Amino acid sequence: MSDDLTEVQTAIVPDGFVINLWNRGFGRTVGPFYSRRDTVTGDEVMAFRVEEHHANGMNNCHGGMLMSFADMAWGRVISNKREIGWVTVRLTTDFLSGAHMGDWVEGTSDVITEQDDVFTVRGRIWCGDRTLITGTGIYKGIRSISRKAGEREARGVA
Amino acid sequence: MSDDLTEVQTAIVPDGFVINLWNRGFGRTVGPFYSRRDTVTGDEVMAFRVEEHHANGMNNCHGGMLMSFADMAWGRVISNKREIGWVTVRLTTDFLSGAHMGDWVEGTSDVITEQDDVFTVRGRIWCGDRTLITGTGIYKGIRSISRKAGEREARGVA
Repeated sequence: MSDDLTEVQTAIVPDGFVINLWNRGFGRTVGPFYSRRDTVTGDEVMAFRVEEHHANGMNNCHGGMLMSFADMAWGRVISNKREIGWVTVRLTTDFLSGAHMGDWVEGTSDVITEQDDVFTVRGRIWCGDRTLITGTGIYKGIRSISRKAGEREARGVA
Repeated sequence: MSDDLTEVQTAIVPDGFVINLWNRGFGRTVGPFYSRRDTVTGDEVMAFRVEEHHANGMNNCHGGMLMSFADMAWGRVISNKREIGWVTVRLTTDFLSGAHMGDWVEGTSDVITEQDDVFTVRGRIWCGDRTLITGTGIYKGIRSISRKAGEREARGVA
């Protein structure tokens, strides 16, 4: 156990989740994130555990952190379905409940429509059986983003 | 000039802006933030400069960072108008343009309606004369949040 890891980071990670290591930028700043892929359906769920660096003034998870996670987890479904990058066009988030320090938060989305590389998704963020956020995302696919050779295969994307 | 400061943090801050030092939590993680208050109208603008720890994979500001900033800058107007804390109920953000590394990003909102401590605001985030995000926020006021004596006065709130 390294001194570089916080108490929460060394806590138990639910079965099937693997850590996603961002090496730079905002993903590294607000991570770490985890993901679990259903080997049959290919569906993927993203997750993170609420730590001190995610907290608001009431010691719960900051709404900005939950929206940032929603943006990532809901958009990621597009990258998994299509060999395509994306930018966010519009995100609507409805806050139904808060996440507390130490909570394990999960999220994913369903692609509702796809036309001319514009994707509309319905997303959900939850903690156990408690829904934290529902919402809608509109993302624009960007075909010019190329992935490193073997990157999709390494992530287990069909 | 301290070694603890990045190159961008030591860069020029526009006239009238003061740094807002969050000591903990998500505000410290994704900061630093700045603000400028109009001494006549009392209106306040929040700001930050895009640094490496805000970046997405294209080396622009991450959409999650811009939404987090929108949540803070648009909700802060409520705290300045009323002796009240708030939680976010719904946020809708329309992304019109991106922010680049080193950009100075500003934002504020107008309170459109207030009823039963539910506030609806129209917000904008911009960089120079370029609008990055417009949107609508719905916030619920929480009266149980008490401020330290003199905190409002120290921030220059009427």
